[in-house]
Parts: sequence; structure tokens; C-alpha cells
Amino acid sequence: MYIEVEHSRDHAGLGIVETEHFTFGFPPDTLLLESGERLGPITIAYETYGSPNRDKSNVVLICHAFSGDAHATGFHRGHHKPGWWNNMIGPGKAFDTNRYFVICSNVLGGCKGSTGSSSINPRTNRPYGLDFPIISIKDMVNAQRHLIDHLGIDVLLSVAGGSMGGMQVLEWMAAYPERILSAVPIATSAGHSPQQIAFGEAGRQAIMADPDWKSGDYYGGPLPLRGLAVARMIGHVTYMSDKSMNEKFGRQVKSGGRADKFSSDFEVEEYLKDRGESFCKRFDANTYLYLTKAMDYFDLAREKPLHEVFRDITAKVLVIAFKSDWLYPAYQCQQIVKACKLAGVDVTYCEIGSSYGHDAFLLESEDETLLVEHFLNRVSYENEIC
Amino acid sequence: MYIEVEHSRDHAGLGIVETEHFTFGFPPDTLLLESGERLGPITIAYETYGSPNRDKSNVVLICHAFSGDAHATGFHRGHHKPGWWNNMIGPGKAFDTNRYFVICSNVLGGCKGSTGSSSINPRTNRPYGLDFPIISIKDMVNAQRHLIDHLGIDVLLSVAGGSMGGMQVLEWMAAYPERILSAVPIATSAGHSPQQIAFGEAGRQAIMADPDWKSGDYYGGPLPLRGLAVARMIGHVTYMSDKSMNEKFGRQVKSGGRADKFSSDFEVEEYLKDRGESFCKRFDANTYLYLTKAMDYFDLAREKPLHEVFRDITAKVLVIAFKSDWLYPAYQCQQIVKACKLAGVDVTYCEIGSSYGHDAFLLESEDETLLVEHFLNRVSYENEIC
Repeated sequence: MYIEVEHSRDHAGLGIVETEHFTFGFPPDTLLLESGERLGPITIAYETYGSPNRDKSNVVLICHAFSGDAHATGFHRGHHKPGWWNNMIGPGKAFDTNRYFVICSNVLGGCKGSTGSSSINPRTNRPYGLDFPIISIKDMVNAQRHLIDHLGIDVLLSVAGGSMGGMQVLEWMAAYPERILSAVPIATSAGHSPQQIAFGEAGRQAIMADPDWKSGDYYGGPLPLRGLAVARMIGHVTYMSDKSMNEKFGRQVKSGGRADKFSSDFEVEEYLKDRGESFCKRFDANTYLYLTKAMDYFDLAREKPLHEVFRDITAKVLVIAFKSDWLYPAYQCQQIVKACKLAGVDVTYCEIGSSYGHDAFLLESEDETLLVEHFLNRVSYENEIC
Repeated sequence: MYIEVEHSRDHAGLGIVETEHFTFGFPPDTLLLESGERLGPITIAYETYGSPNRDKSNVVLICHAFSGDAHATGFHRGHHKPGWWNNMIGPGKAFDTNRYFVICSNVLGGCKGSTGSSSINPRTNRPYGLDFPIISIKDMVNAQRHLIDHLGIDVLLSVAGGSMGGMQVLEWMAAYPERILSAVPIATSAGHSPQQIAFGEAGRQAIMADPDWKSGDYYGGPLPLRGLAVARMIGHVTYMSDKSMNEKFGRQVKSGGRADKFSSDFEVEEYLKDRGESFCKRFDANTYLYLTKAMDYFDLAREKPLHEVFRDITAKVLVIAFKSDWLYPAYQCQQIVKACKLAGVDVTYCEIGSSYGHDAFLLESEDETLLVEHFLNRVSYENEIC
């Protein structure tokens, strides 16, 4: 996810969790992608928390954001860092694992256990690299649907996620309205603006400018870490807000003073450099290209007005935006709400007055908990799910 | 400057203009820099427009922004592109060359004729590279002061500029209050915020990640153009606004469609790539590092509150900000205004409702003309300058 906060050990949480894998799409039943290409076999890494009830009507699907993964909560054995939405998912939390069966899967095209550009291409026995097909948000959702089918789940009580996760939620609303009872898109957009595309492109250009990128064929050799670190730096600046950066860093110069000309001497520079470098240890550069491009291509209203896209939705929808989020400005969530209203969808809009910028969807768990808890209660009650 | 608009030939303008050069600071009278180092000899490239009156009381100094130069208006022989503020400087324009003697100089540390990191180091007979000392906004202003002295000018009728140019204006107000009758800082800040520093650092890291950068010692070999282009792309996104990008590009895909995976297929991507590449032809990568660092280090209130820094100002001040400028948000200009008010300075604040973002200071010439024209009239009248 966008920020890496070292949480204190979460004694009220789920404890140790494990990632599972599901493989489908063996030839000739490969997955038809939105691009027209076919891909398979496809492995999807996923985790589950809590237990399904008898009729599997208590299932919540969590969709992760750009740099997230299937590990949404709890701890992996031997690790001290919990999953990326640990403050929202667990016993007694917003997505209450005492009541709901929660699933989170790494997206198709990801680099955390699901099939993506760093996976082995069965045709060549080498990593796909740029031979991997272009993946769309719709393709990610279709892969999730295969997982849900495999788990024997007909209808999801809810599908929720922020940022790129929110795009997947919107795609579920558009593509599979009959399979969801509710949806919670957070800090997201039904289509990237030129500004969002531009920041994505700046990151991609930074990676592709790295000579170690080698047109994506860098596996087994030196990795394009300098380019990837610059891309991540750009991303980080857009995830924060002017105000949150002022509060966190001010103009403080890091201790030790200027070591060298153009070394990082402001705390904010050092922070971004650290974040960029640590990101390189856990993320694949080609995956950066594929996932940002999937977001940039996402445009639910490409063929018809958004309210027509949402015409068949009977699910209840809760849209959450954050005032200081300038990367996914609140007006983009308001456009989603407006389209829902025009389509006659039961939609609630909440704008949280956070100063954290886009990162708020990961940090404002207190406000989000109140909203999500109440919303899921209502959906459960109205659908007689206990 | 930040944007390159191809102007139609400006028949009402100044016609052909030429850049001149002034050299000072020959050893042992080198310039003492803010860092404590000494530099010299120093050449400053400058242009002048209009004529000085008898007592040289009609002089306006224009300070350029990050990627600007001494060529503020008119045309260079054989060139079809006018100077960067051609819409504001000329006969009958805001800075009316029929009335005022206008000077614009390339900053110390620049790469457009003034001494900077790409200039020849007289000690080695090779380009300075990173042997060039760190330059501050104060050093730039001190070099301008030497030029003004050389031209026999005691007091400036006005000093004006936007963005990094605005910082120089603020430095004139703080360092040489007795030598200015008025000042027009535009779309600027008395000190970079962490967000501004972060965008500067992302650009610097992009350049320094380019293996062709070679710790700044790339002269005579391949230039670090990939890194510089990425840095410029990041810059460009921050100079525009979400709204202006929506209006200019929308989600239009450039004609020809997807040539290749991760090629630029949105118009906004192509535009940024073009701008990045054309910037590389005219700008030096080390200069990018030096000038962005000068802006990041700039902090007028480092030693005492800003209103105390402004204590000795008798000049009239006009501060202009733009509503959609999120890189230099209006609150930063308001802080300048507040400090002026507390210091008892005669200050006027105007916030222009533009949608162009930071670029507005170059584009909103109609509104700026009204403000500047009236302001300079008042200053001239009160100081009995004809």
C-alpha cells in the first residue's frame, strides 16, 4: 500500500495468517482479456479471514490499491508488520471477521503471488517481461470472479477498496451488479484525469529511462532500481498533502547537515529516498508499468454515460472521499455519486475532513470504521444475514 | 520559462533585441557567496528594453523563473519565438517600454549566458560541473545588484517576477529595501514547503539516476537527457492544474493509437514527452540541480519572523497569486502580504481566478496588465517620475 506504518503488535487482531493460491485458465480455457489477448494459466494469490456462514452470504471482498497485495490483515509468520488494512479488518473491526468472511486477492498483473509480468511464461520458461499482455481493471475483476466462483460464492455481501481498489469496486458494480449486495468505493475515480495519467506517465518514464530496465527484460540481471525509486518518490508526493507534509516534515534539515552537494538534506528528501529504496525491495518495475497503465486506461464511461453503466445496480453503495486528497479529488467521487443517483441507486456519500491527502483512506480508520460498520450492519439487516 | 507558446509575430513589440554581457568579480574581488565560498569572474547575460530617463529613475528589473533567461521580450535575430514575457513587456504593455527602462538578466548559476555549472572554470579550463559552488537566491540578487551598479542605477522603480523570479523580488525587498521604490512578487513563496522541496528532489533524483549524469561530469560526452526529460515532465505536471489539463487534453488518445506497450498514447503523455525532450535541447542538467536547490534552500524567515525581515521596506508592494496554482498556493502569497502588513508596508494583494495553475503567471497577461499598469502608474506618480 501507499504507506508503510510500523504498527505495534496487534493483540486484538487475527494473529498469524497465510496466503493461499488458486490457479485457473489452463489451456484451452484461458482467460479472454479486454485487449483481446488470452492468458493462462493464471494464479491468484489470496487470503481469507473469518469463516463463511452456511449459505456463504456473509462474504466481503477487499480490493487492494496499486502497491498492495493479498495480505490485508494479520501477520505472516515471522513478520512484525501486519497486512496493509489491519486497522480495518479483524475481530470487532470495521470489516468484522467475527461476522464476515473476508477475502483479499492480489490483482491479476500483480507481483505478490498472482500471475504478472514477473511470473514465468510457460511458453518460454522465462519471466514474461513485456510479453505479458496489457491488463485492465476489468481483467483484474474477472480474475477475482473466477476466484469467487472457485470458492463457491454466488453473491458478495460487499466489495470494498480504495484508490485502484476502488476502481475494481466500480468495475464490479458495472460488470457484475447481480453478484453484489453492496459496494464501498473509496478515494477513487471512474476514469483517470489527464493529471492522474501524467503522474503515472512520469513514473513510467522514470523506470523506462533506467538503462537497467532493458525493455523489461531485466530479470536475472541488475534491476532498474534507480528508475523505480524515482517513480515511487513521485508517487509518494502525490499520496500526501501539502498540509500533512508541512506537519510531518516542515523545513527540518536532517541531522548531520549537508554531507555533499545535492545529497538529501531536508527530512522530506530523506524520507522519500528511504521510501523509494524500500519499495524497490518489494516491487517489480514492470508491474509498476502494467498496473499504472491499467489505472490510466480505466474509463467506465468510455462507451456510455456513467449513470447508464450503473443502470442495473440494486446494491447499496457507500462512497467515501477525503477533503485533502488532491490525487483523487473529491469531485471524482461526487461524479460517481451523481451517476448512482441518476441510475436510481441507493447511494450514500461521505467526505471525511482529513489532512492526510490520498493516504487518508489507509489512515483515517476511525472515521471509516464508523461509516463502514454502520453501512454493513444495514446491508446485513436488510438482507437478513446474520 | 515553464511553457513554450508559439506566439504569432508581434508587430507591436520591440522587434529585434540582443543579449549583452557584463563581467565582474575578477580576482581578488570575487563575489562572496552565501555559502562562504568565493566565485569570480562572473558573467551576467542581460537584455534591456526602452531607454533610461535622465536620472535613471524609470528602471524596472524583471527577474525570471526557473527555466527562463535574459530574453524576456522581443525577438532574437532569425528566431520566430519571442522572449518569455513578451505579452507583458513592450511598447504600451504592462511594463511599458515607452515609459520604463526594463532590464532582465539571466540568474547567476543559470545556463543561458550567465556563469553557472556549465561555464568554463578558469582554474581548470573545463566546465565547472559540480565544482560550481551552491548558489542561493541571495547570491543571484547580489549579482543583479552588481549589474545595476555597473549600469549606474541607484534606485529601481520596480522589481518584478513570478515563481523563482518572485523569490528574487522578495530577496530584493529584504536585502536592498533602500534601492527599490516598488516590488511585484507573483505566484511565489518566502520559503519552499516540503511539498515543493519534494517535487524538486524528485526531479533531481531523476537526473542523478541517469548514468550519463556521471556526478555532473558529463560535458563533452553523452548528456543525461533521459533523466532531465523525466525531471521536466514532473515539473510540467506541477505547473498546470487539474482543470487546465482536463480542458487541454481530456482523455484523448493521440492519433495513430497504441504503437507499442507503454508508448505514450494519451495526448497528455505525448505533450509531456515532447516538452521534456525539447527542454533537453536548451537546458543544462546540472543547472537544473543548482537552481532547484537554490529555491529549496530559500527561506526568508529562517532567522527571524518575515515581518521583521520586511521592517525597513518603504517600497510599495503588489502581490499577485492565482487561485488554481497548487504548486505555489495562494496561502504562500498571503503569508507575504500578512508580513508586509505587520511591517507597515504599503501592500496590495490580488488573487486572480485563473484555471491555468502555476503557469497562470505567464498566461494571464490581461489581468496582470491591468494590475501592473495601474500599480506602476501610481508608483511613478507618487515619485514624480515621468
